[in-house]
Amino acid sequence: MINPKIPKIWYGGDYNPEQWDKATMDEDMRMFPLAGIDVATINVFSWARSQRDEESYDFTWLDEIMDRLAAEGIKVCLATSTGAHPAWMAKKYPDVLRVDYEGRKRKFGGRHNSCPNSPTYRKYAPLMARKLAERYKDHPALVIWHISNEYGGYCYCDNCERQFRVWLQKRYETLEKLNTVWNTGFWGHTFYDWDEIVVPNVLSEEFDGNRTFFQGISLDYRRFQSDSLLECYRLERDEIKQVTPEIPVTTNLMGFYPELDYFEWAKHMDVVSWDNYPAIDTPVSFTAMSHNLMRGLKGGQPFMLMEQTPSVQNWSPYNSAKRPGVMRLWSYQAVAHGADTVMFFQLRRSIGACEKFHGALIEHAGHEHTRVFRECAELGSELQQLGDRILDARSRARVAILYDWENRWAIELSSGPTKQLNYVDEIHKYYAALYEQNIQTDVIGVEEDLDKYDVVIAPVLYMVKPGVDERVERFVASGGTFITTFFSGIVNEHDLVTLGGYPGKLRQVTGIWAEETDALLPEQQNHMVMKQDWGPLRGSYSCGILCDVIHAETAEVLAEYGTDFYQGTPVLTRNRFGKGQAYYVASSPDAGFLRGFMSNVCEEQGIKPLLDTPAGVEVVERAKDGTSLLFIMNHNAEAMAFDAGSANQTDLLTGRPVTGHVTIPARGVMILERPAADES
Amino acid sequence: MINPKIPKIWYGGDYNPEQWDKATMDEDMRMFPLAGIDVATINVFSWARSQRDEESYDFTWLDEIMDRLAAEGIKVCLATSTGAHPAWMAKKYPDVLRVDYEGRKRKFGGRHNSCPNSPTYRKYAPLMARKLAERYKDHPALVIWHISNEYGGYCYCDNCERQFRVWLQKRYETLEKLNTVWNTGFWGHTFYDWDEIVVPNVLSEEFDGNRTFFQGISLDYRRFQSDSLLECYRLERDEIKQVTPEIPVTTNLMGFYPELDYFEWAKHMDVVSWDNYPAIDTPVSFTAMSHNLMRGLKGGQPFMLMEQTPSVQNWSPYNSAKRPGVMRLWSYQAVAHGADTVMFFQLRRSIGACEKFHGALIEHAGHEHTRVFRECAELGSELQQLGDRILDARSRARVAILYDWENRWAIELSSGPTKQLNYVDEIHKYYAALYEQNIQTDVIGVEEDLDKYDVVIAPVLYMVKPGVDERVERFVASGGTFITTFFSGIVNEHDLVTLGGYPGKLRQVTGIWAEETDALLPEQQNHMVMKQDWGPLRGSYSCGILCDVIHAETAEVLAEYGTDFYQGTPVLTRNRFGKGQAYYVASSPDAGFLRGFMSNVCEEQGIKPLLDTPAGVEVVERAKDGTSLLFIMNHNAEAMAFDAGSANQTDLLTGRPVTGHVTIPARGVMILERPAADES
Amino acid sequence: MINPKIPKIWYGGDYNPEQWDKATMDEDMRMFPLAGIDVATINVFSWARSQRDEESYDFTWLDEIMDRLAAEGIKVCLATSTGAHPAWMAKKYPDVLRVDYEGRKRKFGGRHNSCPNSPTYRKYAPLMARKLAERYKDHPALVIWHISNEYGGYCYCDNCERQFRVWLQKRYETLEKLNTVWNTGFWGHTFYDWDEIVVPNVLSEEFDGNRTFFQGISLDYRRFQSDSLLECYRLERDEIKQVTPEIPVTTNLMGFYPELDYFEWAKHMDVVSWDNYPAIDTPVSFTAMSHNLMRGLKGGQPFMLMEQTPSVQNWSPYNSAKRPGVMRLWSYQAVAHGADTVMFFQLRRSIGACEKFHGALIEHAGHEHTRVFRECAELGSELQQLGDRILDARSRARVAILYDWENRWAIELSSGPTKQLNYVDEIHKYYAALYEQNIQTDVIGVEEDLDKYDVVIAPVLYMVKPGVDERVERFVASGGTFITTFFSGIVNEHDLVTLGGYPGKLRQVTGIWAEETDALLPEQQNHMVMKQDWGPLRGSYSCGILCDVIHAETAEVLAEYGTDFYQGTPVLTRNRFGKGQAYYVASSPDAGFLRGFMSNVCEEQGIKPLLDTPAGVEVVERAKDGTSLLFIMNHNAEAMAFDAGSANQTDLLTGRPVTGHVTIPARGVMILERPAADES
Repeated sequence: MINPKIPKIWYGGDYNPEQWDKATMDEDMRMFPLAGIDVATINVFSWARSQRDEESYDFTWLDEIMDRLAAEGIKVCLATSTGAHPAWMAKKYPDVLRVDYEGRKRKFGGRHNSCPNSPTYRKYAPLMARKLAERYKDHPALVIWHISNEYGGYCYCDNCERQFRVWLQKRYETLEKLNTVWNTGFWGHTFYDWDEIVVPNVLSEEFDGNRTFFQGISLDYRRFQSDSLLECYRLERDEIKQVTPEIPVTTNLMGFYPELDYFEWAKHMDVVSWDNYPAIDTPVSFTAMSHNLMRGLKGGQPFMLMEQTPSVQNWSPYNSAKRPGVMRLWSYQAVAHGADTVMFFQLRRSIGACEKFHGALIEHAGHEHTRVFRECAELGSELQQLGDRILDARSRARVAILYDWENRWAIELSSGPTKQLNYVDEIHKYYAALYEQNIQTDVIGVEEDLDKYDVVIAPVLYMVKPGVDERVERFVASGGTFITTFFSGIVNEHDLVTLGGYPGKLRQVTGIWAEETDALLPEQQNHMVMKQDWGPLRGSYSCGILCDVIHAETAEVLAEYGTDFYQGTPVLTRNRFGKGQAYYVASSPDAGFLRGFMSNVCEEQGIKPLLDTPAGVEVVERAKDGTSLLFIMNHNAEAMAFDAGSANQTDLLTGRPVTGHVTIPARGVMILERPAADES
Repeated sequence: MINPKIPKIWYGGDYNPEQWDKATMDEDMRMFPLAGIDVATINVFSWARSQRDEESYDFTWLDEIMDRLAAEGIKVCLATSTGAHPAWMAKKYPDVLRVDYEGRKRKFGGRHNSCPNSPTYRKYAPLMARKLAERYKDHPALVIWHISNEYGGYCYCDNCERQFRVWLQKRYETLEKLNTVWNTGFWGHTFYDWDEIVVPNVLSEEFDGNRTFFQGISLDYRRFQSDSLLECYRLERDEIKQVTPEIPVTTNLMGFYPELDYFEWAKHMDVVSWDNYPAIDTPVSFTAMSHNLMRGLKGGQPFMLMEQTPSVQNWSPYNSAKRPGVMRLWSYQAVAHGADTVMFFQLRRSIGACEKFHGALIEHAGHEHTRVFRECAELGSELQQLGDRILDARSRARVAILYDWENRWAIELSSGPTKQLNYVDEIHKYYAALYEQNIQTDVIGVEEDLDKYDVVIAPVLYMVKPGVDERVERFVASGGTFITTFFSGIVNEHDLVTLGGYPGKLRQVTGIWAEETDALLPEQQNHMVMKQDWGPLRGSYSCGILCDVIHAETAEVLAEYGTDFYQGTPVLTRNRFGKGQAYYVASSPDAGFLRGFMSNVCEEQGIKPLLDTPAGVEVVERAKDGTSLLFIMNHNAEAMAFDAGSANQTDLLTGRPVTGHVTIPARGVMILERPAADES
Repeated sequence: MINPKIPKIWYGGDYNPEQWDKATMDEDMRMFPLAGIDVATINVFSWARSQRDEESYDFTWLDEIMDRLAAEGIKVCLATSTGAHPAWMAKKYPDVLRVDYEGRKRKFGGRHNSCPNSPTYRKYAPLMARKLAERYKDHPALVIWHISNEYGGYCYCDNCERQFRVWLQKRYETLEKLNTVWNTGFWGHTFYDWDEIVVPNVLSEEFDGNRTFFQGISLDYRRFQSDSLLECYRLERDEIKQVTPEIPVTTNLMGFYPELDYFEWAKHMDVVSWDNYPAIDTPVSFTAMSHNLMRGLKGGQPFMLMEQTPSVQNWSPYNSAKRPGVMRLWSYQAVAHGADTVMFFQLRRSIGACEKFHGALIEHAGHEHTRVFRECAELGSELQQLGDRILDARSRARVAILYDWENRWAIELSSGPTKQLNYVDEIHKYYAALYEQNIQTDVIGVEEDLDKYDVVIAPVLYMVKPGVDERVERFVASGGTFITTFFSGIVNEHDLVTLGGYPGKLRQVTGIWAEETDALLPEQQNHMVMKQDWGPLRGSYSCGILCDVIHAETAEVLAEYGTDFYQGTPVLTRNRFGKGQAYYVASSPDAGFLRGFMSNVCEEQGIKPLLDTPAGVEVVERAKDGTSLLFIMNHNAEAMAFDAGSANQTDLLTGRPVTGHVTIPARGVMILERPAADES
């Protein structure tokens, strides 16, 4: 349980009463209970409000809010307010201001605007955290710390440049080593002094955001900036932990956000929390996968849904309203995938500035007689009824997909072979094929223990970091099924190629040699022709983006290319290795192939769908104490029928038994409680 | 009359003899009379020519030109030459150079390049105006002053930053007030010192030109820059007025140019003038609307067409030649809408630099035997024949559309709900529906007296400035018809939301509450289903961009949404209010709906089309001294037939009576003179 | 012969053993002979490796490589390594760093990064060249010098600004002259002091890369930067020539690269060399044309193919593998068009940084058992068999197309009449029409002797530089056929318009006057209607982009426009002038017209196709010592049949006679040796 003070799914969100008058807060206090709100995230952006110069702190305004919330029985997720530095600080200590990718020194403005290596920021931000911890350590409302906000963005200032050199010295010790791993012999980049190294941006090695002349430099700079921001987080956390060691600490993450290596971050967080803002065209399976990634950051531990919009966003190109029922549906989707909180940005809409058109529990109309409020209130009521029945339940998956931020950075920085390749999309293609069959899939980092799984999928594992190949080999040797794809096993952790033939360190386990990689134009495709029927796989499937031209060495060939000069050469292989097997998928297949492929692989391992449902009806399971909670969610705009089976099961939301052929309403949700199946 | 020295439609344009030798000017003097030229705009960009350092002025070259023109009977529109500062000034006084939106200090180059808050510019530009005024105050050729040229562009330099703070202090007096109206509690922006405020550009609050984190700051910066440039204009004007109080002063505006609040500017101009450069795909109705906006800046007073091209432009992506007859047609269109001058950029094509491929009366061929010259000469001859018969005639419209630059800035700066919304396009949709029915429509500012009109349309009146709501209510209460749309009544002049339910201060007069606003994707649409037939309106029409989900409170519902979750809720309402009525259009309708809607509304008020004509045949009226001048303009490439009615009317261009069924040639023009109808 | 030490087509490429260990180089030495490699380009980017500070040079590593290569019988193309300055130099002497188009001072990074007017660069680069020359002047492996690498890119720093003023003073002597030729009277740009002139970039006169407010300034800046880089080249060359006057010197050019005037450069090179990297969608005829341009730089002298990829590139958006046979085919295409070397970038793939996915003779697999190596080895073997039989053979063309970099700059900088116009595309349209008919065509500069040709084509000769018109007139008067097009004869070398009527100085020879130029939208077209059948030309053809509206003065009209207001006016004319004739093509025609037009013109001059072949089968001839070498290259992916004629001819590649109907395999090559035809 995140904090036993709220022994249910938390329900609440961001709240900024300091932007309003007392009468308005009175109204809030009247309305929150109508919606079943029990937690408020406050003080997210109030640094300037609380501290007007180096010496003067004033928390009386915050005291009042904390006390009032406590009096109303609402708990507090207390932010440290360091997500935006004060204007006076920017003016007096310009080192807090970032230099951007174009090399421009920024002025005061926006948010997330502090240089992570600014001495001023590193002095005053932890100090603020300390002051807050000391002031509120015994406050009855306090249930969790929320450090800063949505960390992100890189800086390229002189302080970062100096600290980058220090970071490099620590990592490589000698310039000789650095010259080697960055391959500086190329294009005459030999460094003779640490101070010759400059930050890689538009003024030096990079262009277009993710393109670089020197992969090694750029890759290390991403590591360094992720570490620098993490260090800012840790400095605040350390101050807090000294004062309130027992209160959990988090910061709100952002799913597949590209810039930070969240697997590293999660090590320093008590509970993972994240902000879920699907775009209008985000596939529901992508949202599901994002939840699972967040869950995977700490080995399956339940996480917090820290933010979602109750209705509309303001920052999308076209901000459509969430259709009736969708807010509830997506809230349960989060819970189904492991969230133990449902929280909104925001509880009351602001009156001015750029987020005033972002939806809120309390809209500008200011009363409870809105569709949005009504839907929130209904959900609040349901969550109260559910009590702690879901809390702390865990998910069990026998299939895992590997995802790695350093691999992603390296792929995105690669010059060639194609700009069409999108690592996260490739991950999602495999995830979606499993999702559509209601097969539980974890999304895990490369350090995770593979032996918990029967099937491990590593799409485009371009970078094989030290030890990963050995662990994959051990996993397969002892019976596991491993799947990898084209453009895998190419480089080591420095983006230096593993010589001798791709896929390098994965060559033995896959039993193939990839001689060439051909890039297809966006409108081009090749075909995967099955050598013989295999379960639902028969005939031919299209594939594209990249085509590895491979030789089966110890592997057997399951499918071949259908066209071009490598027609008839292998595109899908299986290699028996010890007690297990490794598949190599030499191109990026269409969805039909992946559905059949995943079906076959799971079938082989005896992994069954949780339930057979029509398209758009998602089924996810959490379990605790011998009880299974089967979440059935209809993402369609129409009611759907399916066979719920004959188990002894009850819908927690209605209290009624559910068996046989049932109908789930449009955007409806069921939570079937039943005895958990035996685990093999 | 702009200046009685030219008692006819002025005909001429920009002229730069100082770029040529005497022999060429001799040729010009031979050719101008062939084209009927009577006015030349000179000295537009000659600052560097006239002033070579702080102390040295040399106007002898200008004397010669002025005298020569005077000798030939050609009058002078005398520019003050401050549209581009000299290179020596940029070198010695870099404060004249702007800092751009990206924060980059510019070097010398281009034009319109001076910082409006540069002390150097503010010293030397008015001084130049004074010198010119003193030198030419009694010159017989001088008929009008033309200050600088096409003011525009913003600056972000340190001087602007300092002056912005001064401007803010004057506007808000206290930081407390400023913190309130900018809602700085959001994202921790509380200011404790005026000097903490920085200019909003890419380095601070803004991005992508018109996107911002803080609407209040950005909105005020637009006001400030518009005011700063206006102040530059006023400094020059004041110097001139001290010397030649009787000679009119203007500066050339640019229609719907986004950056300056021309309603403020026009207060300081004796006559409005503007440069009309339709793009190849500009609808003719848009040009008509632009003329009416320029006319509306000073309450209907005739304006000057200061620039148009006789043939081609150079700066469009594809610079098509104006087809035969089009130059004449568009010249008369300007006159029809209120212009008392027809002037070109330019009289002679330059030999080098970026405008050498911009058309001119005298092309590079250098003689009069060109299509362009011939067409200009024919028009010149016609204008001479017309004499003063059109001069000072006024337009009379019973319908007005409100347009407001501050509203536009606020809409464009808004983060959400859609990037598809274009304020000027929405204005134009309503204008075009009236234009196509030959219904005269004024385009006016929100300070204009509404009681002059029977129908006032305010598309997307997002920002309701103080007093506007009261004036609208008074207008309707006393019998007026008011029309507004989705996304109206949202904010006050600080872009702070009017709480309690949209459309805020327009809620009472419209009698509706807009609970939500749904943004549609570009490819999406909804439908407006008429509850019953209403004139030509029957059945269903498509609508899109934004859909307000509204509740009729005191209003009656005329049409409902045809689909989506708000199907069956109101999309068109009418509210009886006092003696009048207010319509609310909750989405952006298609052209068919708007045509019928405008037809119905005008029908109700007894407003009739000037004439019924086929598509593309525009009819516009000016009137003076009891005489109506009916301009009929065929924008089609084919001749068109129509019924000219049975009035006693004569075509001023042919001297022939015109009644009954007549045919107007392709791109032809008629000006029917007849007794003015009674005004009700 | 480039260097008699390699009396055959050179075969090799870029080689960087310093990035590897000794064992790897041992492998290289084992494998190179398997591929028939005889030349290696080394030391391209090793400046930092050889020089670690101002005083310390260390060439021992290079000695070893040179000696080892010599020992293995492989010759060396020795680069001077100045294509990228060392990091220590950037740190200590920031003047070597460029300021970019946006006005940003760059930091260390990338390559081609040195300011061409940097005193530091101009000191140390020639010094490096000198040191290398002195050290290796007698080395047996050395066969040619390769100065720097792919010169290009402009700088906008203060040093460049100062030197630009010096360059301008030298060119114009007085400011009065400069003010005249830049037409500074326009927009008040009069300069009173040389120091008022600033570099034209985004901060001053330019925008969007190639758009400017002042064509004169921008044109001169391109000349100046091309000259500045050339001066860097010359400084190095001069040092080398003092030491090794007999060894040829080159630098690798890049075909139609826009930034440098290669005609000026070639004057200072002993042999032209270039890097051929067709994009996936580059027409084969464009590659052919590029070869001919490189050949034309030095009047037809054989050139070096310095770089091509054996397999894939890394920097294209989609890097497709060269299909089997394509590398060989394109290598022979280079030879057919005049190359006496076939060289690769690169011999071994690098292990890290941005070119690690660029193909190489030795791929990452590291052995010879790859498709790429096999294909290279087969070609190497063929080239050895060919010996010197092709070497020094020359091409003979009776048709020439004029191409001029200054003309290109001026066209690209032009503001209007259309952004659709692409000079190089227009050149290519005419080239392709001849190419498809197997008619040999030279691509030459405007200084070339025209009398060598029967037909000279000058598409879009917008800028007519001094003397060019006289030389064209002399050429036509004495019997030549001259073809020019719309938008020609407009300006002089300063981009100042030639007044009196377009096409200005080409008006007499073409016998027409272009009164107007109409720009069409991309989707628009007009038509060319033949007045009567002319050879294959009959009926109507489409044309577009620009349409000159012309008057035939002394010319006869062959075709007229088919539509728009200039329907029926001339679009194709022929003017008899002396013994010859000049055609004027007033718009940009479709390919069908150009094919017929070129056929007719060649027919008139008795110029015959080398052979009639199906589409995609290219035929090119080189000849020496009375022997003709007919290269027949099938660019199709299928075998093609054609009539090889009855000549006594043998395929050099098979040794077999080839007559009558023959079949050439997909992507096949034949080199038919036969007695040269008599030249007329």
